[in-house]
Amino acid sequence: MNKAGRAGETGEGQDAARITVGLGDRAYDILIGSGLIAAAGAEIIRRLPGIRVAIVSDEHVAAHHLDMLTQSLASAGMAAEALVLPAGEKTKSFAMLQEVVDFALREKLERRDALIALGGGVIGDLTGFAAGIVRRGMRFIQVPTSLLAQVDSSVGGKTGINTIRGKNLVGVFHQPQLVLADAGALDTLPRREFTAGYAEVAKYGLIDRPEFFAWLEGNWRAVFAGGAARTHAIAESCRAKADVVARDEREAGDRALLNLGHTFGHALEAATDFDSARLVHGEGVAIGMALAFRFSARMNLASPDDAERVEKHLRDVGLPWRLADVPGGLPSAERLLDYIAQDKKVTRGALTFILAHGVGRSFVARDVPASQVLAFLEENNPQ
Amino acid sequence: MNKAGRAGETGEGQDAARITVGLGDRAYDILIGSGLIAAAGAEIIRRLPGIRVAIVSDEHVAAHHLDMLTQSLASAGMAAEALVLPAGEKTKSFAMLQEVVDFALREKLERRDALIALGGGVIGDLTGFAAGIVRRGMRFIQVPTSLLAQVDSSVGGKTGINTIRGKNLVGVFHQPQLVLADAGALDTLPRREFTAGYAEVAKYGLIDRPEFFAWLEGNWRAVFAGGAARTHAIAESCRAKADVVARDEREAGDRALLNLGHTFGHALEAATDFDSARLVHGEGVAIGMALAFRFSARMNLASPDDAERVEKHLRDVGLPWRLADVPGGLPSAERLLDYIAQDKKVTRGALTFILAHGVGRSFVARDVPASQVLAFLEENNPQ
Repeated sequence: MNKAGRAGETGEGQDAARITVGLGDRAYDILIGSGLIAAAGAEIIRRLPGIRVAIVSDEHVAAHHLDMLTQSLASAGMAAEALVLPAGEKTKSFAMLQEVVDFALREKLERRDALIALGGGVIGDLTGFAAGIVRRGMRFIQVPTSLLAQVDSSVGGKTGINTIRGKNLVGVFHQPQLVLADAGALDTLPRREFTAGYAEVAKYGLIDRPEFFAWLEGNWRAVFAGGAARTHAIAESCRAKADVVARDEREAGDRALLNLGHTFGHALEAATDFDSARLVHGEGVAIGMALAFRFSARMNLASPDDAERVEKHLRDVGLPWRLADVPGGLPSAERLLDYIAQDKKVTRGALTFILAHGVGRSFVARDVPASQVLAFLEENNPQ
Repeated sequence: MNKAGRAGETGEGQDAARITVGLGDRAYDILIGSGLIAAAGAEIIRRLPGIRVAIVSDEHVAAHHLDMLTQSLASAGMAAEALVLPAGEKTKSFAMLQEVVDFALREKLERRDALIALGGGVIGDLTGFAAGIVRRGMRFIQVPTSLLAQVDSSVGGKTGINTIRGKNLVGVFHQPQLVLADAGALDTLPRREFTAGYAEVAKYGLIDRPEFFAWLEGNWRAVFAGGAARTHAIAESCRAKADVVARDEREAGDRALLNLGHTFGHALEAATDFDSARLVHGEGVAIGMALAFRFSARMNLASPDDAERVEKHLRDVGLPWRLADVPGGLPSAERLLDYIAQDKKVTRGALTFILAHGVGRSFVARDVPASQVLAFLEENNPQ
């Protein structure tokens, strides 16, 4: 159904990029560059004339960016109310979903109108889910303000909330109309959060872009500093994800590659009670990627040199990369395996992992023996 | 994207029919006939080998049909837990949605497994919505046990719940894998409920099947009695709906025709506080269809004879057909118009109605002047 991804960068400016996510009649653009929040009103009204909008954000992000977005919309003729929710993963709940849905209905938004998600992955996932179910699907626009959201969660149409049974087990596939990734907005991020988001940037190189990974090894300091290198890294990440999504929108096959590092990572997040003081998502993914490469080496699928190279880069940028890096300790290997087996990507009890033949050569490994995983975790768990 | 609907009836038995809803890779069959609940296990396992299932039902329906369904599944090798919810429209709520979602996760159902909705429209809409959001979309199977559900809500993939802002304002489009419409199960329905469901049967004739409407005028007593005439009426209704859905799955155009009688009808349901003692959905639709034809005649779009013919048939079968038939009285015409304007099918404040040039000649009328509707309601409101 979905044609091969067309992903092109225009020469709109030294420090700006445009990626088109090729999904037929649901195709949409991702704009990347500095100053896009201030330009949001003009961009939206030019592309979607006559649209009405309302904003969903969280307390932290609203403090930095809400006034600018509201003014930008107003100067383009769009009066927009804002719903400001508590910051943090707990906001991805049924109760908050109901809040956002009621907000959209209270604002009398119709199917052709849009909710604007101003925030990180939590706000984007929650708002996208709400937009996907209000009137059985209304428009939404992503204005991601974290690196993680800009390179991952705002691209691809996966939305969702968490339940007591696990993270992201409830949601819909619902594509945004437009993504405005303001690279300058990342200047307000705490260093730890930027670094955690960087794990997903590195992930794209590790999946199938070895040249990009090599570029990151040489240029990560510039990416952290901002400017053209950062915009390039974000654009390359979005392009990588858009290509995969266009090939496999609903995760029937290739899209699973994007879960590199996530099966181990989710288990670690669960094992630390999703306590962000101990571990945030990107940190779990970083450790998960390092484990996936080390496990691949142990299974003689990849060389130990590849595993070492991955570990070194994560260590260089300041990311955790081994189980021993999780503060507060971890449960037993058996318990970690239980968390892994509850992961929603498990099919018929067989363990599915994203493993690698080398940097940029990841693949979906189905029917990985649980006993091998257990032995590997036992060897690596410092407990 | 969706090809023209293929809708064919097999010669599987004197009293059985099969309709295929032609939606490309989401195509599915509707089986209609007596004894299908008892045959459910065999039908499901033959079509979806290896599937795991769990049942959602309500207290009324479970008392009549749950044991038979559970036994049928068990004899086909499927052990199925059941979640039995309170009966009634109030069950289409966020709270119950969360219950069903948690049930599916607790049962560890995966994307390829199925929730079975055993019940009327409420259970079907709620369960379909839950299936649409668990793991971003798992399978579900409809086993509709009311006439309304068999001819309308179980076909077409519209799912949803109600909120304080209105009915069905929240949901997803999610197609079932299979619909098993056991015509014999309708024998347990109260007469009033069967009659209310019949309004939707008559609707298909009024939309675009004048021969079917003429057949109903001559054979409605046999339809009410059961047997081959009933199966024929249900099959013809499903075929009519399947044709429209295949042309316009996501309600961009033609599908709106299915709302014949529903804009007035929803307003009446809202004006009576959704109190089923006063008015149930099908009764609202019956009055709504009569009003749509009478209003069409007033606008010189249809002949008064057509309006009279519609009114007579509804009266004959025992359905309400005018505002005066709503027990307990109605609010003012202005207030009714407010309810109409809040209907989710309103676009940009213009009123959209399904009107008719005659029996079987309905059409989507956009930009109907609110002043004309108000005058019409004032003339017809007995208040």
